[in-house]
Amino acid sequence: MNRRQFIEQTPQTLAAGGLLATQAGNVPDKIPAKPFVHHVYFWLTNPNSEADKKQLVSALQALSKVPVIRQHFIGTPATTNRDVIERSYQVSWLLFFDNLEEEEVYQKHPIHLQFVEKNKHLWSKVVVYDSVTM
Amino acid sequence: MNRRQFIEQTPQTLAAGGLLATQAGNVPDKIPAKPFVHHVYFWLTNPNSEADKKQLVSALQALSKVPVIRQHFIGTPATTNRDVIERSYQVSWLLFFDNLEEEEVYQKHPIHLQFVEKNKHLWSKVVVYDSVTM
Repeated sequence: MNRRQFIEQTPQTLAAGGLLATQAGNVPDKIPAKPFVHHVYFWLTNPNSEADKKQLVSALQALSKVPVIRQHFIGTPATTNRDVIERSYQVSWLLFFDNLEEEEVYQKHPIHLQFVEKNKHLWSKVVVYDSVTM
Repeated sequence: MNRRQFIEQTPQTLAAGGLLATQAGNVPDKIPAKPFVHHVYFWLTNPNSEADKKQLVSALQALSKVPVIRQHFIGTPATTNRDVIERSYQVSWLLFFDNLEEEEVYQKHPIHLQFVEKNKHLWSKVVVYDSVTM
C-alpha cells in the first residue's frame, strides 16, 4: 500500500494557513519566528459567574478577528497547584503579533476599543505581560 | 512559468515539523489546537546583571530540548508601559504542551530538575501561569 500523499501547493493553499498544520491537528503556523507576545490575565468582577465568564470568552472570540493578531489562545487556569503558580485569575488571553507596532495597532483598533467599552464591567483586575522574543 | 510546487509528504517530513511554516519564515506548526500553556516569569536575584540574564537564557535554551515541549519562546519585557502592564520581571519563558500530563512529564524530566538545581540561585522570584485552552 502506498501511504505517501502528494499535496499540490498553490499560493491559495499557502494563504489558507497551514495545510500541514491542519492535517496534523495543530495550530496553523501563523506565529512569526520572533513574535511580540501579549499575555493578559482577567480577574472577573463575579469570579464564580459562569455567565460572565462565557460572555467574556465570547467577546474575546470576536476580538480575535482584529487582523494584526497572528495567533490567539483563550484559556482558563489548569488544575496544577504549586506555590509558584498563580491560579486566582479566571481567563487567560494570549496573543502573538509580528512586532510591537502591530500590537499598538491592535490597542487602537475599533474592535478592541469596542470590546473594552462593552465588557469592562466584567473584570475587576487585569494584568498584562508584554514580551519580546529573543 | 509554473510556480506550483509539488511536495512529497511522508511521515518523516511531517515529523520534521512544518515545511510550510519554515518556507513562510514562521514558527513550525508544532502547537496543538488546544494546548496546555505554561508561562513562567523570572525575577533575577541581580536584576541588572546582563551576565546572569545571559546565563539564564542560555540554560533555558538547553532546557527547551525536553522532548515533550511542543514549542517555546524566551522573551524579555517590551517597552510598552501602561498601568496594567507588569514589567518588573526580567525573563519570560513560554511553553506549549499537548496536555497537562505532558507538562507533568516535563516537570519531572532530568533535564528540568538539573536546570533548576544548577540555576535557581539566579532568580529571587518566579511566577507561573498554567492555562488550558478552551
